[in-house]
Amino acid sequence: MTDIIKALNWRYATKKFDPAKKVSEADLNELLEALRLAPSSYGLQPWKFIVITNPELRKKLREHAWNQPQVTDASHLIVLAARTDLDEKYVKEYVGELARLRNIPVSSLKGYDDMMTGFVKGTSKEELIHWAKKQVYLALGMLLEAAALKRIDACPMEGFDAQKFDEVLELKNLTAAVLCTIGYRSPDDPAAKLEKVRFKDVFLRF
Amino acid sequence: MTDIIKALNWRYATKKFDPAKKVSEADLNELLEALRLAPSSYGLQPWKFIVITNPELRKKLREHAWNQPQVTDASHLIVLAARTDLDEKYVKEYVGELARLRNIPVSSLKGYDDMMTGFVKGTSKEELIHWAKKQVYLALGMLLEAAALKRIDACPMEGFDAQKFDEVLELKNLTAAVLCTIGYRSPDDPAAKLEKVRFKDVFLRF
Repeated sequence: MTDIIKALNWRYATKKFDPAKKVSEADLNELLEALRLAPSSYGLQPWKFIVITNPELRKKLREHAWNQPQVTDASHLIVLAARTDLDEKYVKEYVGELARLRNIPVSSLKGYDDMMTGFVKGTSKEELIHWAKKQVYLALGMLLEAAALKRIDACPMEGFDAQKFDEVLELKNLTAAVLCTIGYRSPDDPAAKLEKVRFKDVFLRF
Repeated sequence: MTDIIKALNWRYATKKFDPAKKVSEADLNELLEALRLAPSSYGLQPWKFIVITNPELRKKLREHAWNQPQVTDASHLIVLAARTDLDEKYVKEYVGELARLRNIPVSSLKGYDDMMTGFVKGTSKEELIHWAKKQVYLALGMLLEAAALKRIDACPMEGFDAQKFDEVLELKNLTAAVLCTIGYRSPDDPAAKLEKVRFKDVFLRF
């Protein structure tokens, strides 16, 4: 078994974290960099990642996450949020940034700009948020694999009230898409002992 | 820079593959195993992964993917499909599989069963497909990171006509959610030289 597959078999959705064990700043920064480097459709990066250590805030958020203990007990709570403000203005800003970083004139990106502008104008706001959330999940996949490779435990979580999270965090032009708690498993987490269940027949070959 | 971050900086959306270089069966199987091991909400694995090498089929699919050359020129085309048949029956089958693999009575999973059944019954078919697609994107993130770590090139692609793909592939209870071509970059792929553009300010800390 290769190192990657070993790591992915090692990981599981950690239900009970050791509250005393913290992820180091260096490790945290590496995981966040994996999120930042995630690709997204058109490169539009329709996301923000909110890293929460504040215990009072996490206690408050836990109330809106089915009281799941990971929210307060893991080393860090990461809220992966999708942008809700994808529009022509956002595309223009992105194109400007692209031109600046690649040191090319904005005009040379006209075809690309037109394609993205066509996409945001031709897609409903609701569909754009669905689209943004999918990109966020791709980034979550990258985070989870990076964490597993570093033997840092994680629990991706959909069980929360996004509207309440948005309110408590005072998110603007963003909505909480999915959570990920990271840290180290408690030695007595019963979930660690459960056999991983994955279907064998998920492939078709042509 | 750590190995993971090096790999994620090395990768890019490959636009021009070397059609002569093929991903070995062992490497392919490792990438597919990364997909298979991806976590999903409730563990429901609402996906199938379709691996396509057949040149005629790929030529046909390319017509429905804006004629992008990666579809035919990469070593393998992977269609990541979301299940469209998530219902009580599917949950029951999953619970049966879970009980069998963990060697426990189905009745011991009643609470879990009820929770999942409540979810699929309380969510519209359209929303369930959005939900399934998000899970698929998480798996795609895992595939892309595994490929990068192995220095296998990849190009995730949203530019295709999902309905046509579903028709051509004769998908049942599935819909093409996103594509990923894998292989090896052509030495003259101009996209390889472009500087990666990622926002610096995607984090909030509380």
